[in-house]
Amino acid sequence: MISKRFRIIKPEIRVLGIDDGMFTLRAKGFVPVVGVVFRGGYFLDGVMHTKVKIDGFEATRKIASMIINSPHYKQLRVIMLNGVTLAGFNIIDIKKLNAKTKLPVIAITREKPNLTKVRKALKNLPKSEHRWKAIKNAGEIFEVTTRNKNEKVYMQISGILKDDAEKIIRLTSTRSNIPEALRVAHLIASGISFV
Amino acid sequence: MISKRFRIIKPEIRVLGIDDGMFTLRAKGFVPVVGVVFRGGYFLDGVMHTKVKIDGFEATRKIASMIINSPHYKQLRVIMLNGVTLAGFNIIDIKKLNAKTKLPVIAITREKPNLTKVRKALKNLPKSEHRWKAIKNAGEIFEVTTRNKNEKVYMQISGILKDDAEKIIRLTSTRSNIPEALRVAHLIASGISFV
Repeated sequence: MISKRFRIIKPEIRVLGIDDGMFTLRAKGFVPVVGVVFRGGYFLDGVMHTKVKIDGFEATRKIASMIINSPHYKQLRVIMLNGVTLAGFNIIDIKKLNAKTKLPVIAITREKPNLTKVRKALKNLPKSEHRWKAIKNAGEIFEVTTRNKNEKVYMQISGILKDDAEKIIRLTSTRSNIPEALRVAHLIASGISFV
Repeated sequence: MISKRFRIIKPEIRVLGIDDGMFTLRAKGFVPVVGVVFRGGYFLDGVMHTKVKIDGFEATRKIASMIINSPHYKQLRVIMLNGVTLAGFNIIDIKKLNAKTKLPVIAITREKPNLTKVRKALKNLPKSEHRWKAIKNAGEIFEVTTRNKNEKVYMQISGILKDDAEKIIRLTSTRSNIPEALRVAHLIASGISFV
């Protein structure tokens, strides 16, 4: 898919921030996933949810279907993820998510993803090559500076130009070093988890 | 309990907004309840949750214990409710909630509560006199003007002076006619409900 070039990025651009809830290590079962619709870095416009299997394979499909079936879908301009893994190693293939939703995807982390470590951890799980391919599909890791010049964040992107993604991350990081939609998605997903 | 008089009301006063999720009419079981910590009318600081029984009697106790056991408890200055009923007619006795938490309570509704109708509806439920007493404990209904001068909202209060409650409602209604903590609690509770 060709990367969308934003003609203009409005301060109240509708972004969806996605994060998962807590779960007990080595547990089986499902983890709640929350999607938060934000107007830029300013205010919350809606909440959606789904659940994904711990170390499962259906995260990309579940997230795409949560988004496409949401009443907010038509207003959304970009999807933001807290990294590309949910519920352990249930990996979101951001290329596939972009293709399925026709929306640009930006995966953001506070720490630089350590691919050597990830590859090693995957070895203990079934279908590790399949998971590894989804991880690699997230592509190049870029360093981005947001509010705090001394603390970088890291992004991987699909269906969006690097410059546009950086602009959107900076514009929406109004309260912390990461976009408000992701900060709030994390607070909600943690706040509703029954561990 | 004597009403707290606020010496000063800071624009970023920590308020807790509480609302319940959706459920199917005539269903049995539990309904999720979400508490949202907001800094004034500005931004979300945390999320807590509990669940209460449809038409049950434990809402006051469950809400009080959710608040007291939260890491945000010490920072909170006021509790805001979307009316005094949760999950059908599981009634929050705001006098008791105020006594248990030592925090002022403001229950807000967009429509003026119709007590004649409520009393009639209660007749079909067990222990209707017990429920009615909790409803009556919410006390006098006051009309308040927030952002939109033509659309009033209604409040019932416990442990707070009328003037202080009005000031806090106006200060925190930054995006709509009701305090931001309640608007967002509603969006989250609805967004995470599995109906």
